[in-house]
Amino acid sequence: MKDELEKCFEFILEIEKLKAIERRTKPLGLDRYENSAEHSWQAALLALVLAKFGDEALNIEKVIKMLLVHDIGEIDADDVFFFDDAGRLDAKEKELAAMKRIFGILPEEKAAELFGLWNEFENGDSREAKFARAIDRVMPVLQNLYNNKQSWTENGVTKEQILTKTAYIGDGSAILWETIAAKIENAFE
Amino acid sequence: MKDELEKCFEFILEIEKLKAIERRTKPLGLDRYENSAEHSWQAALLALVLAKFGDEALNIEKVIKMLLVHDIGEIDADDVFFFDDAGRLDAKEKELAAMKRIFGILPEEKAAELFGLWNEFENGDSREAKFARAIDRVMPVLQNLYNNKQSWTENGVTKEQILTKTAYIGDGSAILWETIAAKIENAFE
Repeated sequence: MKDELEKCFEFILEIEKLKAIERRTKPLGLDRYENSAEHSWQAALLALVLAKFGDEALNIEKVIKMLLVHDIGEIDADDVFFFDDAGRLDAKEKELAAMKRIFGILPEEKAAELFGLWNEFENGDSREAKFARAIDRVMPVLQNLYNNKQSWTENGVTKEQILTKTAYIGDGSAILWETIAAKIENAFE
Repeated sequence: MKDELEKCFEFILEIEKLKAIERRTKPLGLDRYENSAEHSWQAALLALVLAKFGDEALNIEKVIKMLLVHDIGEIDADDVFFFDDAGRLDAKEKELAAMKRIFGILPEEKAAELFGLWNEFENGDSREAKFARAIDRVMPVLQNLYNNKQSWTENGVTKEQILTKTAYIGDGSAILWETIAAKIENAFE
C-alpha cells in the first residue's frame, strides 16, 4: 500500500509540469496566456455545467475524468495550436509516448484506468469522448468570443477555418454547436 | 434552452477569475506562485488517483466534483493562507456570499447542484467531504515536502503547526495521514 502511495505522489508531482505549458488563449482580463492545467480545470467544470445538453445517456463523470487527463501528454509534447494541422499530426505520437511514460509512474491498475480514459478521448468514438471533445473545443471559442477574438486575431485564423474545424462540436451536442456557430458568425460581422 | 446555455457561458467566463487568485505554494520547478484554478485541477486528479485509499463506499465522482468547485468563492474572498486562523474565519462569510453570487449566474437547477457540492465540502461531514478535504490539504503538503518546504519556510510555519492542523487528513484516509505525517517528521529532522 505504501509503495502504491509513493507512486501516486510521484505522479501528482510530475504533472505539476502541466502548469508550465502555455496555450494561445489569454484568460479574460489577464495579460498572460493560460496554461493547460487551468484549462483542464475549466473544461471539466464546463462539462459538468453543460451536462444536460449532451446525449441523454451520457456518463458525465466519465467526461469529467477524461477532461482532467486529456492534456497531460503536453508535458512532453507541448501544446500545439489547434489550427496547426501539421504540428498536430506530429504531436500525436509524442503525446502517446508521453502518456505511456507519465501514467506509467502510477500503480498498474490506476495507470490502465487513466490511459483508457485518455485513449477513449483521443479516439473520439464514444458518446462521452464526443462530448468531452466538444467541451474542450467550446471553451477557447467562448474565450475568443468574449475577449475580442484574441487568439484568433493573434494567429490570423479566419471565420471559415473556425466554422469548419470546430463543427465537430455538433457531434457532442447539436444545440451547443448551433448556438456557438451563430455566435461565431456574429463575431465576424 | 438557449437562455440556459447563455447563463452557463456567463458562469464559465466569470470563473476565469480564479486563474488570477494566487496561493502560497509554488509549483515544483516554477518561480511563481500557483493559482487556485490550477490547484483545483490537480486536487481533483489527486482524488481520482488516490480513490482506493479512501472509505470503501466512497463516491469518488462526487469528491472530484467537490474539488472542482471548492475554491470558486475565492474569486470574491481571495485565498487565505491555511495557517491564518483569523483570516480564515473572516473569509468564511465572504465565501458564502461569493458562492451565492457566482453559482447564482447558472440556471436554477445547476446552481443548486453546485452549491450543494460546495456546502457539503464546507460542512465536512460526509465521507466524500472528508476525503475531499483530506486531498485538498495533502496536495500543498506534498508540494512542500518535495520543494524544500517552500511555503512553510516563507511563512514561518512550524512542524507542530503542520502536524496539528493537517491531522484531519486522517478523517479522510488513515493510511494517507500515517504516511504523510511520517514524511513531515522526516522533513524537519
